[in-house]
Amino acid sequence: MIRNMEIEMKSTQLTGDNYIGFKKSGKGNSVFQAVSPNDGVALPVEFKRATDEEFEEALSLAEEAFPIYRSISNEKRANFLDRIADEIMALGDVLVERCALESGLGTQRITGERGRTCNQLKLFAQLLRDGNWVDARIDKSNPDRQPVPKPDVRRMLIPVGPVAVFGASNFPLAFSTAGGDTASALAAGCPVVVKSHSSHPGTNALVSFAINKAAQETGMPEGVFSSIYLSHEYSVKLVEHPIIKSVGFTGSRSVGMTLFKAAINRPEPISVFAEMSSINPVVLLENAIKAKTEQLAESLVQSVTLGVGQFCTNPGLVLLIKGETSQKFLQTFSKSLEKAAPGVMLNKNIASSYRNGVESLQKNGQATLLAESAVKGKELNTMGSPAAFTVSGTHFLQDNAFSDEVFGPASVFVLCNDHAQQLKVLESFEGQLTATVHAEKGDEQALPSIIELITQKAGRVIYGGFPTGVEVCHSMQHGGPFPATTFANSTSVGTDAIRRFVRPVAYQDFPNDFLPNELKNDNPLQLLRLVDGNWTKDKI
Amino acid sequence: MIRNMEIEMKSTQLTGDNYIGFKKSGKGNSVFQAVSPNDGVALPVEFKRATDEEFEEALSLAEEAFPIYRSISNEKRANFLDRIADEIMALGDVLVERCALESGLGTQRITGERGRTCNQLKLFAQLLRDGNWVDARIDKSNPDRQPVPKPDVRRMLIPVGPVAVFGASNFPLAFSTAGGDTASALAAGCPVVVKSHSSHPGTNALVSFAINKAAQETGMPEGVFSSIYLSHEYSVKLVEHPIIKSVGFTGSRSVGMTLFKAAINRPEPISVFAEMSSINPVVLLENAIKAKTEQLAESLVQSVTLGVGQFCTNPGLVLLIKGETSQKFLQTFSKSLEKAAPGVMLNKNIASSYRNGVESLQKNGQATLLAESAVKGKELNTMGSPAAFTVSGTHFLQDNAFSDEVFGPASVFVLCNDHAQQLKVLESFEGQLTATVHAEKGDEQALPSIIELITQKAGRVIYGGFPTGVEVCHSMQHGGPFPATTFANSTSVGTDAIRRFVRPVAYQDFPNDFLPNELKNDNPLQLLRLVDGNWTKDKI
Repeated sequence: MIRNMEIEMKSTQLTGDNYIGFKKSGKGNSVFQAVSPNDGVALPVEFKRATDEEFEEALSLAEEAFPIYRSISNEKRANFLDRIADEIMALGDVLVERCALESGLGTQRITGERGRTCNQLKLFAQLLRDGNWVDARIDKSNPDRQPVPKPDVRRMLIPVGPVAVFGASNFPLAFSTAGGDTASALAAGCPVVVKSHSSHPGTNALVSFAINKAAQETGMPEGVFSSIYLSHEYSVKLVEHPIIKSVGFTGSRSVGMTLFKAAINRPEPISVFAEMSSINPVVLLENAIKAKTEQLAESLVQSVTLGVGQFCTNPGLVLLIKGETSQKFLQTFSKSLEKAAPGVMLNKNIASSYRNGVESLQKNGQATLLAESAVKGKELNTMGSPAAFTVSGTHFLQDNAFSDEVFGPASVFVLCNDHAQQLKVLESFEGQLTATVHAEKGDEQALPSIIELITQKAGRVIYGGFPTGVEVCHSMQHGGPFPATTFANSTSVGTDAIRRFVRPVAYQDFPNDFLPNELKNDNPLQLLRLVDGNWTKDKI
Repeated sequence: MIRNMEIEMKSTQLTGDNYIGFKKSGKGNSVFQAVSPNDGVALPVEFKRATDEEFEEALSLAEEAFPIYRSISNEKRANFLDRIADEIMALGDVLVERCALESGLGTQRITGERGRTCNQLKLFAQLLRDGNWVDARIDKSNPDRQPVPKPDVRRMLIPVGPVAVFGASNFPLAFSTAGGDTASALAAGCPVVVKSHSSHPGTNALVSFAINKAAQETGMPEGVFSSIYLSHEYSVKLVEHPIIKSVGFTGSRSVGMTLFKAAINRPEPISVFAEMSSINPVVLLENAIKAKTEQLAESLVQSVTLGVGQFCTNPGLVLLIKGETSQKFLQTFSKSLEKAAPGVMLNKNIASSYRNGVESLQKNGQATLLAESAVKGKELNTMGSPAAFTVSGTHFLQDNAFSDEVFGPASVFVLCNDHAQQLKVLESFEGQLTATVHAEKGDEQALPSIIELITQKAGRVIYGGFPTGVEVCHSMQHGGPFPATTFANSTSVGTDAIRRFVRPVAYQDFPNDFLPNELKNDNPLQLLRLVDGNWTKDKI
């Protein structure tokens, strides 16, 4: 058992201050404490919300840092990112323990998430060293072309400017202060201003310390990173600030949409890349169920209850066709779910929303409770207990409420009359982060139309697996049609996440000396470039 | 001289009907005629605005066409695009003459624009045959990875759905019915619904005939293309229609912003890629002026007055530093501008806006008329006469009005006290499509900071040239920070324009047989794919 005081003692970084550039600053009188969801007890250190002056200072520093930071070579930016990962690891157990306390997620999960966060930073460092992310293109001139000479045009991606990052409570490391948004924005050449999530301010403080230490020791300009504690009203102010040029957000649909629209209504509209809500449908076809009923039921329970269901990719809806096979599957699933233990959720608001969501399913006359956890949990207002419901395809199609995300370890099974109704249910969905299908020999007839439909609805389609667990790689797409995200053409996980924070610029008839290295004749960075329509590493 | 009746006779396609899929349809009673800006006379054929029923039918056909069209191979879609180009050419002089009459642009310009339009279609056909535009990425699985196995993830770009296209009056072919928006959307696999521009309905009818003929003869589904005549109120309705998933627009800032915001406020927000407004600053450094005063003045007059200044890339602002050199340049420029003839503008509204813009510069106490055309033009309400003004850098910085686009053959010279003030003026600019600098030996000191600044402000930076003339190629970037466009990360010219109408989808652990050809193990399309972080044409 970890004692709070011990953690406080271990780290002198937990001062409760904001990071305004390289400076610790705590001028404000409005303070708050983190609350451990494990016991409802306030955790040590009062965190000081930024004053207007501190808020403006963080933004001014970001503005000043931008021209310097964007001119720093890919190699040096890569060193900065690698160093952040090292400094996060150097925080040691203090970070893991504080983060576990603040989030209610176990130290094992947090250790894993820390690894993922560091790997993510290192992957972006690799991307910078590789250099090809700038999508360099060159069309050579032809002065003799008729009726007009053809100019020399060369194009690459450049950073857009300071980025605001709003982390998520459910990934206090991987989608927060040094998460994918920050990593990709810093990789792109954009300074970052983080609004610290109020659920894990201590985690934020420790990670911010690591980032700023890395920035100073690798020669980055002050203002390349700031993290500030802000009340909710300031979220809109941050998005509306003229210095901010793009925004990364992971969280609820209502907050995401508020920020998205505030950003559009600025005098200079900008994009809020918000990842918001998804129910991640899973289609289980008959022969897949028959072939491995037990294994499938067990894996599904695991996916539904993993992290107390607090994943944006949690499978909230499972589509079955009524009949003996699915009946047997539901029995097996129920037995397994009953054994799944309730868990501590991230904070009491999330737990209360979850219980409300379950309650409205219980009160909905068309839904039937299929199973719930039979394991007794602690008496805590942060507990979330696994539950599953069934609804007929016909009723599902009549009531939009079944399509709402219930964030937590709950799933709804939609029992369709036939394949045609199953397609109708799939068609009725809003956009999704993921959609999954399980099939085996014998399901060939139904499969193509299901694959076709889920591909239209989701950013990622999964065959024979489960949506939880988002691989950080070049091919990952974590983003989908609205309301999964505000921009289906963007991803917040994987290397292509960098595209959210860049724009192309074309250089026409520029002398070689004034071109960026990426576009120079002799190709000093050895990039693969699209020259006159062909990808090549050749010199011009 | 072309007689209107003759054109009418020559083409049986000018019936005044809408193209609702493959059908000509004219059920409405609300009609309008094109007016020749050359003489104010109404041109033959009454065009029938679509009824609500026709409007809905065009959209339903697009919806029905989408699943068929998106599944058609790249090769066949390429044939369709090539065929559109052929059918446009096959329209012959009828198209050129009608288009010249409707736009007031000469037949020579229209012939050139027709060539550009066809080349653009053929370039997208090439892009499809090449196939690499889908940005295929593969990360191979590793079942032995600890702590969790690594899945197989493969990603490519897929079309978003039906696209609405709003053409521009100033490019009745290249940015209209079969222009860059339509070509890139069709290439992406998206059906297109065009709102015909009210200035060139006959041109639209002829081109729509060509597109539909090409669609039928290359086996495309009905609904892959429709073009409808609509009153302005319907523009918002079109953008708000749930079937539409993306929008291409070129036109005024006010209409662009109306559509952009309407699209964001839909239940399912979508993106309007609007290209709106730009003043395209040109910086002339001292030694560049000294080295070629005459040539520079002459070229600048040509760029300002080309097409009666009706280009989104028209150089509306020229930055000079006060002194003998710039004084001499302005004298030379004035002499040349005085010889430039007034011209017929696209329609009387555009001409009247232009005259109002010039008038408010004349009335602005801080601007001084530098020169105006001394050539007498016809007495027509569509005439636009070249004019140039000067303003001091100090006054420019005090009055935002000088940054407003005056669409037409007018330019404002900003005379700065020194290099520092010139940088301040550049810094004060909103986002631009283009920014240009002219420099010669001796200007090295000023140059880097100017290049740095204009790169931040514009989508395309030009060295020693002029912004008019936008090359259609892989490297072109025609789009810039707001208000040049709504999304600075997009282009409406060049092959990357296709990105506006696609989104990535990741396939996780899919059996090879169910993967699209682009992602199959044996790489049947011979694409360059990013496999585990390395670009390769190898099989998996």
